[in-house]
Parts: sequence; C-alpha cells; structure tokens
Amino acid sequence: MIRFECDYTEGTHKRILQRLLETNDEQTGGYGVDEHCEKARAYIKKACDSPNADVHFLVGGTQTNTTVISSILRPHQGVIASVSGHIAVLETGAIEATGHKVLTLPSDDGKIRAEQVKGLYDAHWSHAAPEYSVQPGMVFISYPTENGTIYTKSELEALSQVCRECGLPLFIDGARLGYGLVAVDNDASLADIAKLCDVFYIGGTKIGALMGEAVVIINDALKKDFRYMIKQKGGLLAKGRMLGIQFETLFEDGLYFENSKHAIDMAMLLQNGLSEQGFSFQYHSTTNQQFPILPDRILKALREKYTYSFWEKADDTHSVVRFCTSWATKKENVEMLIQDIQALQ
Amino acid sequence: MIRFECDYTEGTHKRILQRLLETNDEQTGGYGVDEHCEKARAYIKKACDSPNADVHFLVGGTQTNTTVISSILRPHQGVIASVSGHIAVLETGAIEATGHKVLTLPSDDGKIRAEQVKGLYDAHWSHAAPEYSVQPGMVFISYPTENGTIYTKSELEALSQVCRECGLPLFIDGARLGYGLVAVDNDASLADIAKLCDVFYIGGTKIGALMGEAVVIINDALKKDFRYMIKQKGGLLAKGRMLGIQFETLFEDGLYFENSKHAIDMAMLLQNGLSEQGFSFQYHSTTNQQFPILPDRILKALREKYTYSFWEKADDTHSVVRFCTSWATKKENVEMLIQDIQALQ
Amino acid sequence: MIRFECDYTEGTHKRILQRLLETNDEQTGGYGVDEHCEKARAYIKKACDSPNADVHFLVGGTQTNTTVISSILRPHQGVIASVSGHIAVLETGAIEATGHKVLTLPSDDGKIRAEQVKGLYDAHWSHAAPEYSVQPGMVFISYPTENGTIYTKSELEALSQVCRECGLPLFIDGARLGYGLVAVDNDASLADIAKLCDVFYIGGTKIGALMGEAVVIINDALKKDFRYMIKQKGGLLAKGRMLGIQFETLFEDGLYFENSKHAIDMAMLLQNGLSEQGFSFQYHSTTNQQFPILPDRILKALREKYTYSFWEKADDTHSVVRFCTSWATKKENVEMLIQDIQALQ
Amino acid sequence: MIRFECDYTEGTHKRILQRLLETNDEQTGGYGVDEHCEKARAYIKKACDSPNADVHFLVGGTQTNTTVISSILRPHQGVIASVSGHIAVLETGAIEATGHKVLTLPSDDGKIRAEQVKGLYDAHWSHAAPEYSVQPGMVFISYPTENGTIYTKSELEALSQVCRECGLPLFIDGARLGYGLVAVDNDASLADIAKLCDVFYIGGTKIGALMGEAVVIINDALKKDFRYMIKQKGGLLAKGRMLGIQFETLFEDGLYFENSKHAIDMAMLLQNGLSEQGFSFQYHSTTNQQFPILPDRILKALREKYTYSFWEKADDTHSVVRFCTSWATKKENVEMLIQDIQALQ
Repeated sequence: MIRFECDYTEGTHKRILQRLLETNDEQTGGYGVDEHCEKARAYIKKACDSPNADVHFLVGGTQTNTTVISSILRPHQGVIASVSGHIAVLETGAIEATGHKVLTLPSDDGKIRAEQVKGLYDAHWSHAAPEYSVQPGMVFISYPTENGTIYTKSELEALSQVCRECGLPLFIDGARLGYGLVAVDNDASLADIAKLCDVFYIGGTKIGALMGEAVVIINDALKKDFRYMIKQKGGLLAKGRMLGIQFETLFEDGLYFENSKHAIDMAMLLQNGLSEQGFSFQYHSTTNQQFPILPDRILKALREKYTYSFWEKADDTHSVVRFCTSWATKKENVEMLIQDIQALQ
Repeated sequence: MIRFECDYTEGTHKRILQRLLETNDEQTGGYGVDEHCEKARAYIKKACDSPNADVHFLVGGTQTNTTVISSILRPHQGVIASVSGHIAVLETGAIEATGHKVLTLPSDDGKIRAEQVKGLYDAHWSHAAPEYSVQPGMVFISYPTENGTIYTKSELEALSQVCRECGLPLFIDGARLGYGLVAVDNDASLADIAKLCDVFYIGGTKIGALMGEAVVIINDALKKDFRYMIKQKGGLLAKGRMLGIQFETLFEDGLYFENSKHAIDMAMLLQNGLSEQGFSFQYHSTTNQQFPILPDRILKALREKYTYSFWEKADDTHSVVRFCTSWATKKENVEMLIQDIQALQ
Repeated sequence: MIRFECDYTEGTHKRILQRLLETNDEQTGGYGVDEHCEKARAYIKKACDSPNADVHFLVGGTQTNTTVISSILRPHQGVIASVSGHIAVLETGAIEATGHKVLTLPSDDGKIRAEQVKGLYDAHWSHAAPEYSVQPGMVFISYPTENGTIYTKSELEALSQVCRECGLPLFIDGARLGYGLVAVDNDASLADIAKLCDVFYIGGTKIGALMGEAVVIINDALKKDFRYMIKQKGGLLAKGRMLGIQFETLFEDGLYFENSKHAIDMAMLLQNGLSEQGFSFQYHSTTNQQFPILPDRILKALREKYTYSFWEKADDTHSVVRFCTSWATKKENVEMLIQDIQALQ
Repeated sequence: MIRFECDYTEGTHKRILQRLLETNDEQTGGYGVDEHCEKARAYIKKACDSPNADVHFLVGGTQTNTTVISSILRPHQGVIASVSGHIAVLETGAIEATGHKVLTLPSDDGKIRAEQVKGLYDAHWSHAAPEYSVQPGMVFISYPTENGTIYTKSELEALSQVCRECGLPLFIDGARLGYGLVAVDNDASLADIAKLCDVFYIGGTKIGALMGEAVVIINDALKKDFRYMIKQKGGLLAKGRMLGIQFETLFEDGLYFENSKHAIDMAMLLQNGLSEQGFSFQYHSTTNQQFPILPDRILKALREKYTYSFWEKADDTHSVVRFCTSWATKKENVEMLIQDIQALQ
C-alpha cells in the first residue's frame, strides 16, 4: 500500500536518525533539562525572533493542546474554537476532561474570523446574567487549519487585535506549522506568528520527527509553573533529550523548513495533477492536506493500492477525501497516483 | 559526569536503534494499529501467558497511571496506594486532576500489605455513613517499589486475594518490572504477575527503550473503550509504531530480561562493594535502585564526578542517597565509584 | 413591580409553610434519612407507579443535572442534548466541569427527536476511528423544554426505544415537570414518564417549594452509590428534612398538581389574551412559559410595571420575550397585564 | 430520642420562621440579587468591619468549600489542611473531584500551626524538582475545628503571617464560626478573623438557619467572577432570598451570637457535669462539640434514649463520643443526660 491517509506514516528524517545514533551513549539528565534541549530552545527562540520566549517540549498534539489550554483557563472559562477545530472534534473530549467547554464558532474552511470572536465575546458580556454561561477565556486556532487552509497575515493581525482588546489569550495549534509557513501564498513569518499570539506550538511529529511538539510561550503571564502542568498531564518525557535532539536537528540549519517545503511541492504536484483532470477541491488548501472531490467509483478502485482519508460525501456519487503529503512523500508515488486516477476516468 | 541519579540517562539499546533504522522507511498506519504493534502485542501476551489480555502502548509512566486509574474508578472512588507510591508523591497530582483521591497506607519499605488493604476497606464500610468519605475503588502497587523492594509471590497472592474479595481491581505499576523479575530473590514470574492482578504495565523507558510502557489488561471488565481513554489523556502516539518496534525488539527474544539482568548485576556489584566497606542501606533492595547511607563528607566529594539522587537525611552527618543502575550502566564506572568511595573513607 | 420573569419569584405555598411551622421543633437525623424524607419517598414512588425506584432529594437543578450525569458517564463519554438544553447553555459549563462534553443536537423548539439521537449514535460508531471523538453515553431531555414545549407520549416512546436500543440511559430534567403533566394537550402520565426513562427528577423549586428537586432513579444499574455522588457534588443538605417535608406536603394529596394546574390556567389566560389581540408566539407552548412576540415599543413601556425575560430579537421592531406564570401567579395581575398591553397598542 | 449527634437536628430559629412567613408573598428576583440578600450583605460586612468585602450566600458547607477552593487554585496546586480537616475526610473527595489534592498536615487537636505550613512550603520549594509534586496553593483551616478546638488570636496571626509571606491565601471554614467566637476562652473577634484571612464563611445551617453559608471574600484578588463559580458548582439557589432573609434575621440585631451563646452555655453545662463525675475529654473543647471518654457500658445504655456520635475507641472498655449542643438545645435535656450518666455509674 502507498499511504496518503496522514502525514505520519514513516519514521523520521535520516538526519535525525543519524543524530540519535551519534548521541545514543551520552549520559544526560532527564525531563528536558539536558544540553540538547537547551540548544534546541535557543535555535527555536532565534527562529521565532523571540529571545524571551519559554520553550517546552511535549510528545503529542492532543497532550499539548490539553496542557496549554488547561493551564490558561480558570474553571468557569471556555476556549473559543472553530467548529471543525481539532480540540472540538478529534481529541475525545480532552479539553472537557480538564473541565472546560469548547465554545465553537461556525466555519466553512476551518478558519474563524476576528468579527466572530468579537461577536461571541460581546454576546456573552451583554447577557443579563453572564455568569449562567461559560465565560470565553481564550481563543484557539490551528495554523494551518484542519482543512489545509491558512490565515493571511492580516487575518492573524485582526484576530490578535480582537483577542488583546478582549483580554483573550490567543493560542495557535501548529501541529503542521511548517507546512503553512512555506505555503506559496503564505505571507506570515514564524516571527509574525510569535508576535501575534500569546502561545503556540511548532509541530514536529508531522514534519519529520519521531514525535514531539515545541510549545513557545510568548506572553510572560502564561509562563509561570508550566512544567508542573506538563508533568501533571503526562507530557514530561523521562528521556526528554529525545525531543531536544530532534528539534535541535530540525532547527539548527533549516531542516524543518526543507522538510516542509518538500511536502508542499508534493501537494502542489498532486493538486495540479488533479486540477488538470478537471477535479475540484472542497477547500482552497495550499498546504500538505489536499481535499479533492472524486467519484466514488474511482475512490473504490484506488483503495486497492493507496490509502487516503474519507472526509465526507459530496453527493450521491462523489466524496471528498483527504490526501496528505509529508516530508517523506516520494515524488514517484504522487505521479503514479495522478496517473492511476487519470487511467480510471 | 558519570550518572547514577536515575535509570534513563542514555538513549536506547543498540538493537532497538538498529531496528528503528531498518524500519524507518516503512509506511504504516498511525496510533498503534500497525504490524509492529501487533507483533509486540503477541510477544507480550505470550511472555505473560495471557492470550486473552489486551495490550496497549503508551509513552510514559505518569500518563499510564493516570489513564489506567481514571478508566477504572467511578467519580466517588479513590485508589489505595502506599504513602510513598509514585502516584501519591511524584506525579504532580495527576490522579487528583482526574478527580480521584489517592488513599494512602503507611509503609516503611514502599510495600503495602494485604491486611492494610483489608483494614482500610473495612474501616470505610463500617463507618456509620460511608458515603461521606471517598470509597476505595482499586489498589495500586509498584513492582518493584519506589524503594527498590519487591513483593514476594505469597505477598502478591495475599494482596490479590484480598482485592478480589473486596471487589477492588489490582493495578501494578511496572515501570521497572524487569528489574524486579530478574532480582536474585524474586520468586514471581511474569505470568504470576499477570495472573494475580487485573491490569499492569511493563515499563520500557527505564529498561532500554527510548520511551514506552506496555499496559496489559487481564480483567475483561476493564478492557472496554480503553483506547478512548488513551486518546483523551494524550497518550495515543501518532507514530505508534515507534512503541511497537521497541517492544517487539525487547520481547521477541528476551532482550528485555537481558537488559534487566545487566542492571541487577551492576546493582549487586555496587551493593557488595559498599557493604564490604561497612556501609548500610536504608532499604533491603535487590533491584536496580540502591539506597546506601553515606557520610555527607563523602557525598559532597563524589558530587564532583558522579550524579546520584539525594533521598533524605539519615542523621546530622549522613544521608540516604539513591544510585540507579540500568541496562546501560558500565561495569568500570561502578567499580570506579566503589573505589572512589573507598578512597574517601 | 409585578414579576413574570421567572417561576420562582415568591416564597412557598402556604401549606408548606404551615408544615414547616408544625414540624420545626422536631428533632430528626440529618442528610435525608429522616421520617419526612421517607414519607415523601413513598408518596413519590406511588405517584410514579414505581415501587422499586430510588428517590433522592437535592437542592437545585444545576446541581441535580451535574450529579446525575456525572454519576452515569464514563470519562470518555458525553451527554446528548438539545442545543438549547439547560445543561448546554445555562449552567456555566457544570457538565464540562465534571469532565464531560455536551453533544448538542439542533432544535427549533427545544425538543430532540429519536431519529436525531439515532443519527448521532450511528455517526459516531460508523467513524473509522470512533475513539478519537467523545462517545455518546446518555441522553438528556427537558420536560417541558426550556421553550415551554412538551413531548407527546409517542415522541417519548420513540426516544425511549432508541435509547434502549443504543444502550443510552435517558435522563429527563423535570424542573417544571408538573407544568408539563397538567398541560391541556399532554398525553403522558407521571407513570409513563417513569416507565420510559432511566432516571428523571421532579422539580420542586418552580412548583411551590422553597427549594428542592426529587431525583427518581428507575434503572437499577444507575442506583449504586448515588448518595456518594450527591455528597461529593455538594447536594446533600444537612437538614435534609427540609426537602422531605416539602415533597411530603406536595405529594401527599395532590398539591403538586394543584399548583401546576393553577400556573397553566394563568398561562392559558395570558396566551388567549394576547392571541386575541393578534400577537403570535415564538413557540407552541401549552405550559407555564409563554413566548409572545411583542413590539419593542410596548415592551419598553411594560418595563415600568412588569418584569419579563428578554429572549431574542424577532425583527428590527419586535422581540420575543418570556412571561412565566407559577403556582403563585395572581389572576388579577395577568388580567392587568393583558389590559395594559391592549391599552398600549 | 433526644438528639445530641449533631448540631442540625431541629428546623430553624422561630424568628427566622416568622420572617419567612412575613415575606413569603413578596415577589423578588432570583439568584441572590434581591433586597433581603443586599441587606444581609450590609449587616455582615458591618459585623466583619469589612466594608469592601464581597459576600455571597451558598447552601451548604461541602459546596462552599469546593467552590471557594476550586476558584482559587490553579490546576497543579493543592490546598494545605489538617489531616482531620473536613475537606480531607468528610466530603467524599469533593476537592479532588475538582482536580486538587488536599495536602494534609498531622494534628492531634484539629489545628495546624504556622510552622507546619512553613515547613511544608519550604519542603516543596527546596525539592530538586518541585514540579513533580503538587504545589501548595492555599491553606484551609476550620474555626472551630472538627474537634471543637479554637485557634487563639496569636495563632491566627502567626498563620496569617506565614500565609502572606508564602503567597498562600488563607481560607477559614466557619461552619460553626459563631460557636467559636462566643467561646469563653476566645480572644479573636469576627473583625479579627476577617482581617487575618483572605476568605472565610459564616455558617448558618448549624447556628439556627434552615440552611445557608455566607462566604466573605476579603482579598480583592479572589473576588473576580465568583458568581460563575457558585453557579457552576450548583450553589446558586434560585430562590436566593431564602438565604438572604435568614442571614438578615441572624445579623440585624445579634441573633447569630445569641444562638451561639446558648449552645456554648449548654456545652459548658454538659462539660462541667461530666467533669464533676470524673470523666475526661479527648480534646480541650470550649465550643459546642464535646468529646468525653465514657465507658462502653454506659454508652450502650444511653443509646436507648439519646443519640450521639461515636468518635473512636479509647481503650478496650471506653470510647470517645461526640455530643453536640446547638442554638436549639434544651437545658432540661442536658441536665437529664448528666443525671442519667450519673445514675449509670
């Protein structure tokens, strides 16, 4: 089977493996206070142009979202998110399990708008008795979104401004951050992201690491005692150097962006290939997740050889599906997929 | 520095690294449903003589304890544990964060006894209004304990019997399971452990893996929906194969026990070396954690060259400290440590 | 001011006050195990034709919903409810605070349908990886709903059947139960309600008591340890007799239904009065909450003399508002309100 | 049966009943924003000499403790309390159910000392890795304690000073506050209590009200959004006036202290009566809970006519029991009890 169902089907980039080999016999302290973690932190702060940021390494995305969000909110507060946000639909209620409601905003493309946030905030505070409902306490967005779309810099600026006016910390889930930053139509830099939000994370798992997400806390008020939260939520890896070594390798000379770039090249190759065949796409995605609308007949045939994710029915005979590329996607496999679809028409 | 402060100071066993290299380019599905996980499950079930067990792979110990315990208890129930149990003192209240009290029993050596469990259970149910206090809902023990001690088979049988009489599932934290199983005075097999408890886990992180703990659910009643719990608690690794590959390597031909054996040999070497110099030990440990009582003067001097964990003051001029050996401990380092202490006398 | 904004604007029915006076010097045990509670339990079980039910007395509605729901669900499960359900919008995230997501279904009138429940259930279980999302674990409905509407007996039967097929306990919030039972178009008896659900509660606060809700647990599987849950959630009243005495008085000879009947008579008087003046209503309510659509000009004028609840804007010059009647509503006040509105036209 | 097992065996003081009668037909808004609540707040603030305090009315003690504590702590923090504190032993894990550990300090008499708090605080922060254990986040004491003892003013001052030095809010559970304030050896005024802590509550249930506890928040930093917390935890009574009317009556002209004084007179009568017969007491209590050590033979005989609470075995033939007096205790019953015990010797 050739796998396109997600962006974590292979192990890790060979340079990371090499580094793991080289460092394997070193003795280090545990729990993320070793030299590799320190170096990785320095590289990341530099890449974010945020010398005062706190950087923490966690293992996975759900864990990271839960840890960050439950660290910020008071018990009566909830987190504003898109109705299609990962925390709203695909984390088995992890946020609710920490006591907080996800306050969802409608979205067609995975993005939420500054006006929506302002609207929800105003609706809460204009209620005769606001205390009978959950108080909006922060905002969560994914960049890129779960639909592959990205926010423009001006959209991020508008969100950021509303959040600051309303006193709502802005948290960006960057599980696929690199895939957004190198997208051809992206106009926001990593430093912009850092400047416009209060806390975000740089996803490693999906961009070439074995596992690992780097939380970057920009807002001083959110830094206090964060390691307690990581430990309590089960995210403090004993051999924390495993995360440090990987992020060190990804950020010391741009591997993170190289990995990202390759995936985007492959995604554009696929998008162009299918567009040329006349297929349309459910979302305007310039990142590594592509959502073509294909005939069920073709999809069924493809299943013999390829994996992909079913997204939703488009009509009686067509479905939206998701193909993911990644740092590891082979060009010949994308070309073969395009040709196979062509042949099935 | 030569590190003895914990048992996770190195990377991973070279055979695991080799296997990661070999499998790196394979494409697999995510979240623990790949072939490597399947093979690892089969090896583990065989090693446990428990063909009907469910086996799940999680990343770390705190996460595993939280996931298992919160999966079993109803909201008004607590978990019985030793006052020195990991969940009681070293997990930042992770159990409480899921809503449950840890009901502690006094212990001098980290172990709890069947009579203590029965006593606490009876005290609860003989109260005039049991519903005003937390209902004991399960029992947690560590094997080996946090003090390096192990339960004898008959102690485990007694605990198991009381637990079954009282309807309290017995959960064994096996973060260092291997180090207990190969201890010279151990008389309980892995199959015994499996037979006597309801659920336990086999620690990988401390016995040669990069990370990973294998939860083995024996009691059918506790199997339902466990993957939901792993996902919600942030323990479902995207590249789940990383855990599968490691446990496959550890269990396909006994590497787990080899690793364990080496650590115990090194621990006994250290114990004998210090005993011969006339030092005594705080706990009777036959496993990889050794707790000698040493003069503070010597400890201070050692700190230039070695790391160890401070445990507690013994008297005005002596302290209990912890030295850990592991699968990776070098014999020459242990010998050097013994000599250096000798020289400092 | 003449108050119509809710159904708890007065103290308590004079017969309850009288009974409190008569019993005030009695000495009883605490926490709901006194004779008055016992008598009240017997009356309620008889009224529900459910001799095997467990009956517990709690103080308020949010507390009752939280206690019942968190007692039933496992950590990865959520409760299905109408998007307008009290637990979804007006309880400050109390359900989420116990760790559970409210899985909302769209509704125009506050009611949810059997097909919707089945649809959500099927969607969950047909997902490729159900464990990434919250598992539906029970169903919550309000009877009457927050919009004043009631379920027909056949609607309840359909819901009940789907719930039983899917293994989802059905919980009915009966904060205004009496007002539904005596509604002119109601065809479900209290015994029907009891038979068709797994657990429900009989609201006292809004139907003549000082405070108090009587939880009736029909399903044996849900009875275990419920008093622990009440105590933990802060609902076990020290002077529990206060609740027993009130429900004893309400149920010993039909006062609960008399109280309910009066409110409905007053609500119908109001409804007819406004209908005759040509006003329409947002919801088809035959219970004690009426939702007329009135000109903002008239509403503003009424505010000098009456209280009511703003519900939502209907258009630029009209709003939906809520008038509540209750067991204590004075006929002359309703008549005056109708006349005042007439005069303002 | 003549009841001495607790201090909530009767209804309410006749002046409260009278006031409920007089106000019963008034229409008021719900949820504690009515005129009676406002008046009660003003009286309480005056009695506490705390014009800037926030005063909230809740229904019961467990609910109040849970609401206050979970409002203050961040997720990784716990509350320091005596090992015999109500929250540690008699609230079914309500604090843990909100995610927080109770960090217990040993105590023989129910009181904890400033040095103990400082010791626990220092031990946490001097740990090599404080983040692996629960961070002390506040201090809980009961005044009087669950053993009937009271803190002296200088003890409270010392506790208060340590708490402020360590940044730990001090919360006083005053379920029986009045019984402490009027104790013959008490030297702390209500204003002292208010000045020395950050938040406390004035118990109504046990001192003559039907139910109700008045939370007084002194520290501005703890005031924000407290009504959200009350609502979420199920403590916002719909007919909030019921609490307002009662506290208004208790505090408008000293009834609260009259009630308290009567109970203390009765407790001293009992204490003297038993002391004169040669019996000793487990705790030095000058409040309404008395803990004599009596022969089991006598206790068994008393059970025919009196209720009391078994506390613990003293030796093979004696037990510690608790007798409570209250605002409602009849002098002739105390005298009869003393005589009956005398006769049984």
